Amino acid sequence: MKLLIVGGVAGGASAAARARRLSEDAEIIVFERGPDVSFANCGLPYYVGGEIAERGKLLITTPERLRARFNLDVRTRSSVEAIDRSAKKIRVRDLASQREYEESYDKLILAPGAAPLRPPIHGIDLPGVFTLRNLHDVDLIKARVDRGVKQAVVVGAGFIGLELVENFVKRGIATTVVELQDQVLPPFDKEMTTPILQTLSQKEVTVLLGQSAESFEQDTDGLVVGLKSGQRLTAQLVILGVGVRPENKLAVNAGLDVGPRGGIRVNEFLQTSDRDIYAVGDAIEIKDFVSGDPTQVPLAGPANRQGRIAADNLFGRSIGYRGTQGTAIVGVFERTAAMTGASEKSLRRAGRPHRKVYIHPANHAGYYPGAEPMTLKILFDPATGRLLGAQAVGGAGVDKRIDVLAVAIQAGMTVFDLEEMELAYAPQYGSAKDPVNMAGFVAAGLLRGDHPQIDVETVLAAPIDQRPFLLDVRTPSEFSAGHIAGAVNVPVDDLRSRLNEIPSNREIAVYCQVGQRGYLATRILRQRGFSASNIGGGYKTFQLFQPPGT
Amino acid sequence: MKLLIVGGVAGGASAAARARRLSEDAEIIVFERGPDVSFANCGLPYYVGGEIAERGKLLITTPERLRARFNLDVRTRSSVEAIDRSAKKIRVRDLASQREYEESYDKLILAPGAAPLRPPIHGIDLPGVFTLRNLHDVDLIKARVDRGVKQAVVVGAGFIGLELVENFVKRGIATTVVELQDQVLPPFDKEMTTPILQTLSQKEVTVLLGQSAESFEQDTDGLVVGLKSGQRLTAQLVILGVGVRPENKLAVNAGLDVGPRGGIRVNEFLQTSDRDIYAVGDAIEIKDFVSGDPTQVPLAGPANRQGRIAADNLFGRSIGYRGTQGTAIVGVFERTAAMTGASEKSLRRAGRPHRKVYIHPANHAGYYPGAEPMTLKILFDPATGRLLGAQAVGGAGVDKRIDVLAVAIQAGMTVFDLEEMELAYAPQYGSAKDPVNMAGFVAAGLLRGDHPQIDVETVLAAPIDQRPFLLDVRTPSEFSAGHIAGAVNVPVDDLRSRLNEIPSNREIAVYCQVGQRGYLATRILRQRGFSASNIGGGYKTFQLFQPPGT
Repeated sequence: MKLLIVGGVAGGASAAARARRLSEDAEIIVFERGPDVSFANCGLPYYVGGEIAERGKLLITTPERLRARFNLDVRTRSSVEAIDRSAKKIRVRDLASQREYEESYDKLILAPGAAPLRPPIHGIDLPGVFTLRNLHDVDLIKARVDRGVKQAVVVGAGFIGLELVENFVKRGIATTVVELQDQVLPPFDKEMTTPILQTLSQKEVTVLLGQSAESFEQDTDGLVVGLKSGQRLTAQLVILGVGVRPENKLAVNAGLDVGPRGGIRVNEFLQTSDRDIYAVGDAIEIKDFVSGDPTQVPLAGPANRQGRIAADNLFGRSIGYRGTQGTAIVGVFERTAAMTGASEKSLRRAGRPHRKVYIHPANHAGYYPGAEPMTLKILFDPATGRLLGAQAVGGAGVDKRIDVLAVAIQAGMTVFDLEEMELAYAPQYGSAKDPVNMAGFVAAGLLRGDHPQIDVETVLAAPIDQRPFLLDVRTPSEFSAGHIAGAVNVPVDDLRSRLNEIPSNREIAVYCQVGQRGYLATRILRQRGFSASNIGGGYKTFQLFQPPGT
Repeated sequence: MKLLIVGGVAGGASAAARARRLSEDAEIIVFERGPDVSFANCGLPYYVGGEIAERGKLLITTPERLRARFNLDVRTRSSVEAIDRSAKKIRVRDLASQREYEESYDKLILAPGAAPLRPPIHGIDLPGVFTLRNLHDVDLIKARVDRGVKQAVVVGAGFIGLELVENFVKRGIATTVVELQDQVLPPFDKEMTTPILQTLSQKEVTVLLGQSAESFEQDTDGLVVGLKSGQRLTAQLVILGVGVRPENKLAVNAGLDVGPRGGIRVNEFLQTSDRDIYAVGDAIEIKDFVSGDPTQVPLAGPANRQGRIAADNLFGRSIGYRGTQGTAIVGVFERTAAMTGASEKSLRRAGRPHRKVYIHPANHAGYYPGAEPMTLKILFDPATGRLLGAQAVGGAGVDKRIDVLAVAIQAGMTVFDLEEMELAYAPQYGSAKDPVNMAGFVAAGLLRGDHPQIDVETVLAAPIDQRPFLLDVRTPSEFSAGHIAGAVNVPVDDLRSRLNEIPSNREIAVYCQVGQRGYLATRILRQRGFSASNIGGGYKTFQLFQPPGT
């Protein structure tokens, strides 16, 4: 068996190591266009900021080590230019010597990755305008920051964009983020990003939403970024982080199938339309585990997993890739945002029935010092209760709850299963009723009919005179510190004795701070014949729909 | 409906709140022998140590608040003395007035909890010898510590025992732990507690294993604890933390069924042998979710959940309790130990076939600063790969992995499912191949036959002359810093060229530091015709079996 692997970073390196473990006799050659293999892509922003101090830490392994340990023929600075599928060989250019040569294969794995998008913006090739993909890029960016940068503009408020923002701010750079959409972190539902906007605002980051860069010009102070709005931003450093596109040229030229967004098409065994050619990583189109639809998810975890699976299949093991849930996480200063499975907007786009609940718990028992708040949103099927997606934003413990919910989605569990989860509890780590249990209680209560809920945006979308009667069951001091316009205040502890103040001929939307007192109030009202629903997640959820600057 | 609830802490308070949400009309009376309801049991040790500074924080709710919010009749300092099942009434003693009275019921929930065991040790009633169950106990202990304690003895190295040890040390008290078994934290497998012993040793805690207290005497310096060994320990404070027994007297006297260890027997709907009487919490015998056997698990999470379920069933909802996995966690200084599902010793005791793997990963990407090591052990069915149990010990991130694995057990997932888990990865939070994935890879490799493994204790148990050939594939410097006696060193990177040094007529047990290089070496050797297995988890696992002081 002669196996060629195009690309030596996440998916390619994983495939190569796995292939060697499966076969000592196979001839395995890895071609990597860049000078490095298997570097820590996800660490690059933190090297700019100095959190990762040594460049060497970013090199997970070296060509030399791969040769010594795995007996791999690793050829860096080697660009694969073409595939001759009928002859089963590839044409390689050695970038050092510019020499070209051919190499035959029995099996071929494509792991070329994805390249940062470079939209046709005037001035995009000016010095000082960067994208961030590899160690070469990060060296250039870091060198510029080290020379002294007063202002930076990051175009694109995705995961890497916001990680760079954080690290620029830590380097003392006044930073502006420009994002085309009306929210940061576009994979998330918009209201879940409100706490991130608040954090960015606290850190004096300027966030310009619904904006795009239209030009870059050189000026005496550095670069001038011209926005669609006409606004002009001065910066000595500009990062373009507006997404990636699959590196599919090799595949397309070889006549392999690609999807509408450019991802190389593969079957569940990660074979392309040519059964001797596999493809893995950011370059491929894969199945969304929840929706079953094709998608492209450029993430390191799935890429590594796919590399392993391609090698398994190549050696005859028949291991299917189950698709991706899009589990993702990002740290933005002290806050963490994470998600898994479907978002509300993706479900809406797909026309798939769904319900949602919000809760606003602390990461561990409130009586133990240092509890940090989070907001957790889960999405589920209204007929079966099956969990479809989850998003969380907050401090410590967000990663844990999203991981737990990722497993629940993988297992096809329902909100009723969340009620029963037996998670580790001591006061430093969680609560006797963990946030995941609480989300299950609220969602199951909704589905069982015990806990009718109305979404706050549904309430607010109605014309004022057609809104339900808004009942705020918090304390008078909470009420006076801020409430939804038009609400009437009857604290839950007084409700039983003040039922005469509640209209019996109208829909009632109850709310409290996080939903718990509202739930009890809803129970009281419904048992007394009122038509009441609880605003899920209460006033805190209402606030999510009021991002800063609105 | 007139519902009486005996006990107002975790299970009782949960049941009462749930019952009220389900019925505004029910008459609900909660009887609590102590002065407090729903206090933070799990926080008590941290109040002694000062981490929780205000006593008020330990009161999760008050009788007044339960009355106002849930319209509950809460009667504290009220001891339920007897149940007359035929007349459906109970006899209550008001501990303030010593007045006795009767109260009738339609339904009764028993949530009396468990009491600390008080073995018949000479001097057990001396001042200075305490158990810790409630706020009254903690007040006495804290008052004594506040008055000045130089030396303390904690009898019993269970969860609460070690939490108290930590808090005593933080108060500057020289502390000795005495444990009857040959390990701390008896629910864990012994080798997994080695890192905890190391931590205790670093903190200058004296740990006496295989020892018991036989007498307590008053002396001028305080108390003298006489051990079985004859050793005598001086202390001004002694804590007995040797376990709990279900508070079953009321149930037994009423003729309700109890199990062999005293737990009140209930069906899946948490009904006792009298269908109008439910029981929940530490007092009951429940089903072990993994083994199906009856067990008693005095933990707050399950107690709360059971309270909810009993109330549901009482109001006709027919919700089954699925049993408990015994998920538990404890912090011991900077270390965390957590477990879920079956332990190896419980599987061995039950004669249930099982295999295990150990891994020693970091909690997040090694290239990002602050990664903390952990040891993770998983237990699984060798025929199906179904996950049976998991234990972890280490720093940050232990709680997350055990929660993820707890869900996997709940869902009936296999080690093959662990391979596919898509968990949240950014370098501060995890790794592209998360510890849970890694455990899955190693276990699946074992079951698929790709990665034959031999347990280190199996190797060590054989007479020296019948042991396999021990091959250490680490670097010479690692080898010379410490290795398993009798091992021969051939670094993995040299193995392919030094195969002539490996005997072809013997079983070979390969090991490295954590198992990864050993895995590759095993693959190389087997493909070259050697009969090799990898010592799972490598030298670090070997070290777990060499606890300090052995």
